[in-house]
Amino acid sequence: AWSNTMPQGDSDAGKVKSFTCQFCHGQNGVAQKEGYPHINNQSPLYLYRAMQAYQNGERSGSYGDMMKQQLSVLNEQDLADIATYFGEQP
Amino acid sequence: AWSNTMPQGDSDAGKVKSFTCQFCHGQNGVAQKEGYPHINNQSPLYLYRAMQAYQNGERSGSYGDMMKQQLSVLNEQDLADIATYFGEQP
Repeated sequence: AWSNTMPQGDSDAGKVKSFTCQFCHGQNGVAQKEGYPHINNQSPLYLYRAMQAYQNGERSGSYGDMMKQQLSVLNEQDLADIATYFGEQP
Repeated sequence: AWSNTMPQGDSDAGKVKSFTCQFCHGQNGVAQKEGYPHINNQSPLYLYRAMQAYQNGERSGSYGDMMKQQLSVLNEQDLADIATYFGEQP
């Protein structure tokens, strides 16, 4: 299920932790590949919820599995930091 | 699996077909509720793919099921029109 709250996120830490995200989502969250989502200027809580959905298998399929693997090593604080970083990008 | 192509979308038709979306996503795609995704200024192909993922159950859970129900009556052209409409919103 979706969390209603998220740990306090640290954008600077999120920038560091989101190194691998940039290859599809771009350094500033503007997708580099056609058909991939832009994640800049987005609700941090939504981004946090979406990442958790990938982690817990609520988002499956080829892209769901790929994202689950990408996010497998991240804990809740990491997700909050990454969500805060991208959410803040204009 | 994700489609690599989408029917040619008609934004005006999409605005009409997206009447029920506005209660969570806003008339112009800026979410009305905290923690819900903004879908304006987004890749239309991604929006199309995401909606199909809800339709085919690749996105489950409480929100996944709700979205599946919302989208259950829409065909591929409808999704393309809606994706084009919101994707174009600034």
